[in-house]
Amino acid sequence: MEALEAIFTRRSIRSYRDEAIADETMQLLLKAAMSGPSCVNARDWSFIVVHDREMLNKMADANGRPAEPLRSAAAAVMVCGDLNRSFPPAKDYWVIDGAIAAQNIVLAAHALGLGSVWLGTWPQKERVEAQAKLFGLPESIVPHSVIALGYPLKESAERDVFESDRVHMEKW
Amino acid sequence: MEALEAIFTRRSIRSYRDEAIADETMQLLLKAAMSGPSCVNARDWSFIVVHDREMLNKMADANGRPAEPLRSAAAAVMVCGDLNRSFPPAKDYWVIDGAIAAQNIVLAAHALGLGSVWLGTWPQKERVEAQAKLFGLPESIVPHSVIALGYPLKESAERDVFESDRVHMEKW
Repeated sequence: MEALEAIFTRRSIRSYRDEAIADETMQLLLKAAMSGPSCVNARDWSFIVVHDREMLNKMADANGRPAEPLRSAAAAVMVCGDLNRSFPPAKDYWVIDGAIAAQNIVLAAHALGLGSVWLGTWPQKERVEAQAKLFGLPESIVPHSVIALGYPLKESAERDVFESDRVHMEKW
Repeated sequence: MEALEAIFTRRSIRSYRDEAIADETMQLLLKAAMSGPSCVNARDWSFIVVHDREMLNKMADANGRPAEPLRSAAAAVMVCGDLNRSFPPAKDYWVIDGAIAAQNIVLAAHALGLGSVWLGTWPQKERVEAQAKLFGLPESIVPHSVIALGYPLKESAERDVFESDRVHMEKW
């Protein structure tokens, strides 16, 4: 799939076929995640890949009502920030670096025929804490977002997203 | 360009040819920016597009030493968060939504033959304040990142970014 087509036709997919994701496909998603820029190339993230059904259900419990798609997802990637690696003068860049990695996963998934939905974790403290507890994370590793993945039940079409009043030319 | 190729071969480009960016190309970048997911579809961003050389230089002054590429860039897009639109129970999702929009711009630019470099603004308060002052932004509009854009002086090659020790299977 062409890059622009992938960007323009990506939609959040919450219903999946009962079909596994091949290891080579998951590897491409993780390579995509690690291909984005990060602040001073700190690469201040880590990824937890989950296929286990019981664990996916526990991740859904930990991540609030919008995380229900995890219960039928083939897999999930939890993107985490790694505060030990983040840029010391402005550590909060980890939030941006994690988002870049997660968006690369979402786009690569779509290009490979997978559906995904981005499930927000940070900055909702109760979700961050529940995921950290579930995985027994060290303090320096902060749950950022969960990407639920699976082959989509149906095709999705591009929609019109352009809003000209959001664009300011040369000045505000 | 294929989506995966675009993701894998994107590099930060800081030197540009003296060549303008067509309006239709810029339009595609902005459409890409608006095609990403956002928290509860809040679409809590706005974009300031700048071609004016004097203004690009002032943006460089406002954004610290890494922003020097703006002085030879053909254009820049400043991604801003719009706090009036952000998700009330957890407004900080605006940081993630802005990063998604910016990463879509970076990938679309690369797919269209443009080079770009992501110049961090938030969370560095002095940069945020300097850009807000330069553009006279209302309080609800927060500078997030500046993307410098231009046709690259030279081709860039894919590099090996995969680090297996950043991947945790099924558990931490």
